[in-house]
Amino acid sequence: MIKISVYYPNSTGVRFDMNYYVSKHLPMVQKKVGPALKSVAAEQGIAGGAPGSSAPYVAVGHLMFDSVDAFQSAFTPHAESIMADVANYTNVQPIIQIGEVKL
Amino acid sequence: MIKISVYYPNSTGVRFDMNYYVSKHLPMVQKKVGPALKSVAAEQGIAGGAPGSSAPYVAVGHLMFDSVDAFQSAFTPHAESIMADVANYTNVQPIIQIGEVKL
Repeated sequence: MIKISVYYPNSTGVRFDMNYYVSKHLPMVQKKVGPALKSVAAEQGIAGGAPGSSAPYVAVGHLMFDSVDAFQSAFTPHAESIMADVANYTNVQPIIQIGEVKL
Repeated sequence: MIKISVYYPNSTGVRFDMNYYVSKHLPMVQKKVGPALKSVAAEQGIAGGAPGSSAPYVAVGHLMFDSVDAFQSAFTPHAESIMADVANYTNVQPIIQIGEVKL
């Protein structure tokens, strides 16, 4: 199983509309990408590891696929329209990681 | 639900023993922390979002708890001995995020 994680860096002045992200953006991604997208998840950063520290990421989203090929085949045709929606919920550029689930 | 994510930054010369992490380290954490730890997950970074780019993180681990209080009560008494095991599987300092699960 492959997990595509999308990290939205935290910073002063960061804007992130979690309500839009979970109720509009991710459902739109699921609809466009279709059944190759096995599940989605999202977290809101609330703190870092050190006492009193800020979360490194204001939000993180995860998309699960069976394989990198399945992700690329299903996602790439919709990448442009999906990316065009990002400005509707945040003003930060996300960092993307493709990970292989080990546990 | 609270997700404690532990990000191990990728870099030249990074060492990360995924086999040790999933078969020794995380089971040890589960045993020490006890039932407050609801579940664990781990991924190995395989690529970044841009074609040909490296994964930002060589590995990521996740620990699920009901609340920040539940995490702190159960984890803090064992933090020192858990941290002492980190050098057995990696040479990088992890970044920690406490996140609230939204989806």
